Amino acid sequence: MELAEIIKLARGEEKADLLLKNARVVNVFSHEIIETSVAIAGDRIVGLGDYQARESIDLKGRYVCPGFIDGHVHIESSMVTPPEFARAVVPHGTTSVVADPHEIANVLGIEGVRYMLDASEGLPLTVFVMAPSCVPATHLETSGAELLSHDLVPLRLHPRVLGLAEMMNFPGVVYGVPEVLDKIRAFAGHPLDGHAPGLSGKDLQAYVAAGITSDHECTALEEAREKLRLGMYVMIREGTTARNLRALLPLVTPENARRCMFVTDDRHPADLLDEGHIDSLVRMAIGQELDPITAIQLATINAAERFGLRDRGAIAPGYRADLVVVADFESLRIEKVFSGGKLVAEGGRMVPGAIKEFAARVRGSVNVNWAGVDLKIPASGRRARVIGVILDQLVTEGLSEEVKVEDGLAVADVERDILKIAVIERHQGTGNTGLGFVRGFGLKRGAIASSVAHDSHNIIVVGANDADMMAAARAVADMGGGLVAVENGAVRACLPLPIAGLMSDQPLEVVREEMDELLAVAQKMGSQLHDPFMTMSFLALPVIPALKLTDKGLVDVDRFAFVPLFEEQRTGGI
Amino acid sequence: MELAEIIKLARGEEKADLLLKNARVVNVFSHEIIETSVAIAGDRIVGLGDYQARESIDLKGRYVCPGFIDGHVHIESSMVTPPEFARAVVPHGTTSVVADPHEIANVLGIEGVRYMLDASEGLPLTVFVMAPSCVPATHLETSGAELLSHDLVPLRLHPRVLGLAEMMNFPGVVYGVPEVLDKIRAFAGHPLDGHAPGLSGKDLQAYVAAGITSDHECTALEEAREKLRLGMYVMIREGTTARNLRALLPLVTPENARRCMFVTDDRHPADLLDEGHIDSLVRMAIGQELDPITAIQLATINAAERFGLRDRGAIAPGYRADLVVVADFESLRIEKVFSGGKLVAEGGRMVPGAIKEFAARVRGSVNVNWAGVDLKIPASGRRARVIGVILDQLVTEGLSEEVKVEDGLAVADVERDILKIAVIERHQGTGNTGLGFVRGFGLKRGAIASSVAHDSHNIIVVGANDADMMAAARAVADMGGGLVAVENGAVRACLPLPIAGLMSDQPLEVVREEMDELLAVAQKMGSQLHDPFMTMSFLALPVIPALKLTDKGLVDVDRFAFVPLFEEQRTGGI
Repeated sequence: MELAEIIKLARGEEKADLLLKNARVVNVFSHEIIETSVAIAGDRIVGLGDYQARESIDLKGRYVCPGFIDGHVHIESSMVTPPEFARAVVPHGTTSVVADPHEIANVLGIEGVRYMLDASEGLPLTVFVMAPSCVPATHLETSGAELLSHDLVPLRLHPRVLGLAEMMNFPGVVYGVPEVLDKIRAFAGHPLDGHAPGLSGKDLQAYVAAGITSDHECTALEEAREKLRLGMYVMIREGTTARNLRALLPLVTPENARRCMFVTDDRHPADLLDEGHIDSLVRMAIGQELDPITAIQLATINAAERFGLRDRGAIAPGYRADLVVVADFESLRIEKVFSGGKLVAEGGRMVPGAIKEFAARVRGSVNVNWAGVDLKIPASGRRARVIGVILDQLVTEGLSEEVKVEDGLAVADVERDILKIAVIERHQGTGNTGLGFVRGFGLKRGAIASSVAHDSHNIIVVGANDADMMAAARAVADMGGGLVAVENGAVRACLPLPIAGLMSDQPLEVVREEMDELLAVAQKMGSQLHDPFMTMSFLALPVIPALKLTDKGLVDVDRFAFVPLFEEQRTGGI
Repeated sequence: MELAEIIKLARGEEKADLLLKNARVVNVFSHEIIETSVAIAGDRIVGLGDYQARESIDLKGRYVCPGFIDGHVHIESSMVTPPEFARAVVPHGTTSVVADPHEIANVLGIEGVRYMLDASEGLPLTVFVMAPSCVPATHLETSGAELLSHDLVPLRLHPRVLGLAEMMNFPGVVYGVPEVLDKIRAFAGHPLDGHAPGLSGKDLQAYVAAGITSDHECTALEEAREKLRLGMYVMIREGTTARNLRALLPLVTPENARRCMFVTDDRHPADLLDEGHIDSLVRMAIGQELDPITAIQLATINAAERFGLRDRGAIAPGYRADLVVVADFESLRIEKVFSGGKLVAEGGRMVPGAIKEFAARVRGSVNVNWAGVDLKIPASGRRARVIGVILDQLVTEGLSEEVKVEDGLAVADVERDILKIAVIERHQGTGNTGLGFVRGFGLKRGAIASSVAHDSHNIIVVGANDADMMAAARAVADMGGGLVAVENGAVRACLPLPIAGLMSDQPLEVVREEMDELLAVAQKMGSQLHDPFMTMSFLALPVIPALKLTDKGLVDVDRFAFVPLFEEQRTGGI
């Protein structure tokens, strides 16, 4: 809104558009509840108190909070597009997120980042973006793109790009790798987000000295305390897998609360639907006896301050009218959500028409050289290195097992739950295929495959026989990416993810149904895992110990090097 | 320091320059005292803990605080140059100030602002500058310069210019005056400081809606509370005249402390020497039972956050090594001060050589058309409007008195303490001379004159006879500006202020001595005021009620219009 106009409105010289009457306003500056009215015009709050307005809503003493802000999220983990993500989280009170689009960036590079920016234009959710700092995650895999500092610099010009996203390559920072430092230099003066699980002592101090000022990977209280003391904003995370709120909440005191905030990082469709979003963290925190206003500060003004967002995170004249009406602090039931002055959600659902038609498009991302793909494993040894899945954990064991051999080929051994696993490069048409064995899935027949495989998102397949594995991989490719369960050569269930092989073009509810069906089928095929697709999606990520498989081969993560599949072979690279 | 270098130092791979051992570090992030060591290299803190260094200092358990930050100060009020100001405040622990050079800007315009920036280059005190928003203060006076938004825009490019200085023209904001809004627009996204004494209700909301986010003019607790609730940073001021700490301190709670900070605004030489600077506010606040760490937060990180100063205000790796060593929180005796890693003050004195030779120069600022100056007042009426000085206040009364007439001229009447007052334009050589009468100085003979006369800083003279008044005004001009006391045509005491007529080129101690001498002489001449020069300096400021005199004439401040000297004359303009 024009400056002269907002001044007139704040003075009450002109009628506001909307007055929220009889509100209990959560004042995150003064840490008070103020009984007053909120006057809104256009997309702004113009004043608090007795104003004339064309329309009014009597809130009958309900609380009004600033719209919630998620300080760190990968929208791709919701498996839906930004508009569908907005449709999922806005009814829960989230009106701004700071997103790191590093999943799509690993597939489509800057084009993927641009897609996320374009696809989030004009939503009732403001999607701020941090420039992905670590694409690809490692040199041990083939990604769809590599982003160097000079690729990231132009992003700074976009009004919704705030800074540099989680610097996962903390060894690169600590050892002063030039390209890593170039990225940090390119975003000097902007917020630099960290990702440093367990980093401590002088290495952590070096990471902080480089200018990295937040971390969302704290799992233990003392870890968070050390980081807070060094000036890092502590992002308390409650995602689908990583759930840290209970452990970290005791850190928060009235005197240090300003340095803490809430984030979700990764939330899958079912959790977004069943638990909600930032509101669920606020609810949990209040349930854990955190002062309600402090909890709301962690969900609003603190993130706004950390990211230099001067127009949101609080309820004051001139601020964006992003507002959440809640019945009470106990239930924290979100009754109404206003974004930019418009009522966009009510009673847990978006108001019809609040999300505009959406035109952003993205190119196909699957490019497999099938001629080069061969899943056969010649039995060049007896004992193989086998990836051992540990229930509900991202880390794996590096097992040593004798493998079953048929016709000179090492094959899956369903009896002993030693299945075959393959990672098929899908970006550059190299034909690269990493092959290995995995224990823990329990499939008795068939195969499952996915184009969601962190961080390079090649096609990953686990199966009981080569034919079903190949059929599953091909089915993923035929969908342009997605998740699939195959038995006897036929697709039993699937979730197409045509956008970069990561996101559906369907609503969240459809994705959730298809996902549920996939899980049911996998279970029938013998899987004993809570979510075998999620487990599988981390088996190609060579930064989490101990043994992982990429399109380039088997990786001993502790040594950060390739190892041969058979123990008899000499240790070495690919 | 180069990024790769600071990382190596933080990891302990290379020796630091200096280690402060056995320190109790005030951690303003976590609100804790941490027993540790502080490693410094170059101008940076590189780590906390056990580090190797070329040199070390055993602090024997003393507290180490971040260097203090004054969030709002007019350096000109110290009557010394920026280097001399640094020499005065750094030994008190102040290592950064946010200065509004609006006094010199009223005299020399952008050239004056540039002088302040140049003269503060390379000091052990970082002088940040806010672009003066209200030059001249009003259209009722003649200043040396007028600064429009397009004059201010180039200042944004200077690395030490942070935003727009106190917007004193709050009516201009509230009524939407285009040039005022242009200035606000020019600094959108930067900190905009406020100055809105007593502004409340919807006018205050309009002022806030315009984007102004601080105020240092709160005098009452409820006033400060209203501003804090609207999102304004509350700058708690303790200057020479305006002393608000005791009234405002009860506002501060652990939950809202982040929105408050300490400022001095205007401190005169004697107070800087006798009381100190930001340290005196911290000391007072602790004396008033504010938690010591919270008090230090108000003096450090809070100002840093408000102004987006990411490299100071706390003690952490990568931060500027601006550090204050204090013996204890009760005395808050400042033992050592480090600025940019160098020990710059010890035991209340600067370390020799800490302030470099200083080359910034500025043109002469006094340009009076003496031919046009005539102090005679033809007695065109019997009753005159007389400025009534109120002890220890900036506001005056508008009195109505019969004047003494000799030879058809209205003259000073020493018996009734009705003295003559003149304001002689000194910038543009217009010859403009405002004439009037004032009660309350008590001079029995002689005259006092000054080129410090807010905000336009014309030459102001108060005297018992025209001859001494003229001699005093000419003496001020002959010095290129300054303060003078004249009796029987001879200068009895003087303080030359050759820099813009506002600042001495001498050390603070010399200025103080000369000032003391001036006050003693004025007292001998009959003055009963605590500081008649300070009182006089506000009599030309037509924004503080009730009756003031500018070079253009007598101003009824309540009506914001000129009034004739004699009541028999028709009310009207100049």
